[in-house]
Amino acid sequence: MLSNDELARWDRDSFMHPSTHLAQFARGEAPQRIITGGEGCHITDRDGNRLLDGFAGLYCVNVGYGRTQIAEAIAKQAHELAYYHAYAGHGSEASITLAKMVMDRAPEGMARAYFGLGGSDANETNIKLIWYYNNILGRPEKKKIISRWRGYHGSGLMTGSLTGLDLFHKKFDLPLAQVIHTEAPYYLRRPDASMSEGEFTGYCVRQLEALIEAEGPDTIAAFIGEPVLGTGGIVPPPAGYWQAIQGVLDAHDILLVADEVVTGFGRLGTMFGSDHYGMKPDLITSAKGLTSAYAPLSASIVGQRMWDVLARGTDENGVMGHGWTYSAHPIGAAAGIANLKLIDELGLVENAGTVGAYLNRRMAEELGDHPHVGEVRGEGMLCAVELVADREARRFFDPSEGKGAKVVAAMLKRGVIARAMPQGDIIGLAPPLCLSEAEADQIVETTREAVREVLG
Amino acid sequence: MLSNDELARWDRDSFMHPSTHLAQFARGEAPQRIITGGEGCHITDRDGNRLLDGFAGLYCVNVGYGRTQIAEAIAKQAHELAYYHAYAGHGSEASITLAKMVMDRAPEGMARAYFGLGGSDANETNIKLIWYYNNILGRPEKKKIISRWRGYHGSGLMTGSLTGLDLFHKKFDLPLAQVIHTEAPYYLRRPDASMSEGEFTGYCVRQLEALIEAEGPDTIAAFIGEPVLGTGGIVPPPAGYWQAIQGVLDAHDILLVADEVVTGFGRLGTMFGSDHYGMKPDLITSAKGLTSAYAPLSASIVGQRMWDVLARGTDENGVMGHGWTYSAHPIGAAAGIANLKLIDELGLVENAGTVGAYLNRRMAEELGDHPHVGEVRGEGMLCAVELVADREARRFFDPSEGKGAKVVAAMLKRGVIARAMPQGDIIGLAPPLCLSEAEADQIVETTREAVREVLG
Repeated sequence: MLSNDELARWDRDSFMHPSTHLAQFARGEAPQRIITGGEGCHITDRDGNRLLDGFAGLYCVNVGYGRTQIAEAIAKQAHELAYYHAYAGHGSEASITLAKMVMDRAPEGMARAYFGLGGSDANETNIKLIWYYNNILGRPEKKKIISRWRGYHGSGLMTGSLTGLDLFHKKFDLPLAQVIHTEAPYYLRRPDASMSEGEFTGYCVRQLEALIEAEGPDTIAAFIGEPVLGTGGIVPPPAGYWQAIQGVLDAHDILLVADEVVTGFGRLGTMFGSDHYGMKPDLITSAKGLTSAYAPLSASIVGQRMWDVLARGTDENGVMGHGWTYSAHPIGAAAGIANLKLIDELGLVENAGTVGAYLNRRMAEELGDHPHVGEVRGEGMLCAVELVADREARRFFDPSEGKGAKVVAAMLKRGVIARAMPQGDIIGLAPPLCLSEAEADQIVETTREAVREVLG
Repeated sequence: MLSNDELARWDRDSFMHPSTHLAQFARGEAPQRIITGGEGCHITDRDGNRLLDGFAGLYCVNVGYGRTQIAEAIAKQAHELAYYHAYAGHGSEASITLAKMVMDRAPEGMARAYFGLGGSDANETNIKLIWYYNNILGRPEKKKIISRWRGYHGSGLMTGSLTGLDLFHKKFDLPLAQVIHTEAPYYLRRPDASMSEGEFTGYCVRQLEALIEAEGPDTIAAFIGEPVLGTGGIVPPPAGYWQAIQGVLDAHDILLVADEVVTGFGRLGTMFGSDHYGMKPDLITSAKGLTSAYAPLSASIVGQRMWDVLARGTDENGVMGHGWTYSAHPIGAAAGIANLKLIDELGLVENAGTVGAYLNRRMAEELGDHPHVGEVRGEGMLCAVELVADREARRFFDPSEGKGAKVVAAMLKRGVIARAMPQGDIIGLAPPLCLSEAEADQIVETTREAVREVLG
């Protein structure tokens, strides 16, 4: 057996962690936590701590930890055929079956599923397909992508450009050209406190129209958005938002990419967020909930009007030069099949709706009136508590005070994992979809205590 | 049980395959092959065909198919802890152990391993780290990346730009700005037949120097190259190439990225191609051989001089905003550990060297003098046969004749999988590293028969 000290040293000396303060971690100043197991909504670490995971990993372990059915499906596939590629018409029974299952669950009007590994690469695929589409249609100038400030669409060069958060741009020279950002549909941060939600929706729409007009509609290929802003703050859209945006896009022949990496496969209490808000996407990005993270897999779901043009493109140009070695990896596909079956069997889409609503209602009851809580908001199994210095004046804390991180640390001390969202003092919650009401109560109670400890 | 017809129909109707002629596949005109299992160097499909896989999937199943040890490691990890994220200093015993094992095997001077999912995302990470590095050093203009024509570095927007092959640029508006290409070190296609290998190396060096001079050395951040060109044609470098290139890069303070997705973990008969050719990389891209494709995993291995600056960057700027949800996925890490152990136990690095040399020697003996073979070339367990219309005049076939694809189809008919490389009539072979001499003989004999069938 490895001693704890040796493993800890290897970690500090060999492993470059994602989204980490590299220098502090290497020096042993930043926390280190080695996870050893999990069951349901709980994880355990090697120091024997058992924690209620209120963020489902990174809002991805939707069915919860320790699901034997998925582990067994992975094991079976690993023994039968761990890998063969999917290029040039090759496949496995698992990858084909999952493609069928995804299409059976997808919103109306979708045509095919392309499998990658994670949300970032799925959006990478989407942008490639959008550019290809407009080239085949003979519109070489129609290529710019509009994203929103505070959108999260990945961490690569293009996908980090689509992301509209400082942390992912700073020192990386992002965003790249061809990506432009418009207003975040973030009602709490509306420019004028007197605006109603409907008026704010109108404001967002006018901002978008002005941007399209300024850039030229013939240069804009697509608009990408999460049904509910995720890493940007867990922000449901204001009333009427998606319907109004859809109208603007339709008027200018601009494609809609629904980034459903967080919302896909049940998190909002509906199979897809596009159904939830009546969006009519041309592409849907999905990943996390597709396998509940038991194995890496993403799916770009391609709508019929795009598919027809892409297929024509290959008739005109031959094989499409796009693929990852691990596209449609059989282990991911096997995990996906078992995961989607489990979601159905356990009724997790429905549970996300009912327990999610319970979590949001209870959180609002306990913290909605706190003088340093600007807003309790959420949708389905997503909930956020945004801290403010002054509630009436909508004045936010100075980021250097780290109020959000302090509340999250106070929650962790009490055995509940929440996430301090990166831009603002926002306590983010995105538990597994199997959360019980008792576990929701524990999250709410812990949040209340932690907010009181930090902010009185 | 599913009927074959139903599965086949789902495949045509639901699944968008990578690198496939979409329209032909959907119409049922392009081939469809559903793989059901494999053992050693062989795979089987659901029609009962057993094929010798001379390309190891996509040069990735290095230990061969059906390795119970890796399947069991995956199964154990899936039951214990299928997933937790690695953000903010989190990890699993598997991911930390693998980081240590990778660093133990890496060339001298490397400092840390960052885990992603595949080669494309590892190169995406590399470019982000390079830009960050030069921003921290206060050199905001030093950002361009030099790649080589015929290099293969991925299929995303940036990584497909690094790739220097038409198929991956056409209709996708690639390459993006900030990527420039220099001469491919492809001796068969040297500009002047009278050049010796050494003279051609000098020519490549002068081309690179001229490009650096024209762009301005202060604008060039890095040079990326595969030790042996892979998808661009399986082309080992001419004599003295890497040493000479390294000198140019050092003179202009240009970082070297060794893309070892194909060559890493043994394919050349050495653990890394960098060791094989005496390269001194600042970043090493690895993926395929890291897990032998049993689960998706990549590693960007970061050299000490870069690491020191990246760490300083986080002291100055806080947490680095880069990460994938599935970075260091425990299933991939468990597969990687079992795979690297197996490579050691079975002596596969050594076998790649000895049987690879045997394969190349026998291929050269059987086909080296054929009037339509321009060259038999290779290194370690990589071998290519390039077809030409006229050997003396170095005249190539018209691509529309599809000679390479025809030879590969004639080999498949005889039970051996080779790959028609995408640019040129090049028969590519990259078998599992466990290939036996008898299997090498079968590949050579099959190639010989197929070349004779197509070209006489």
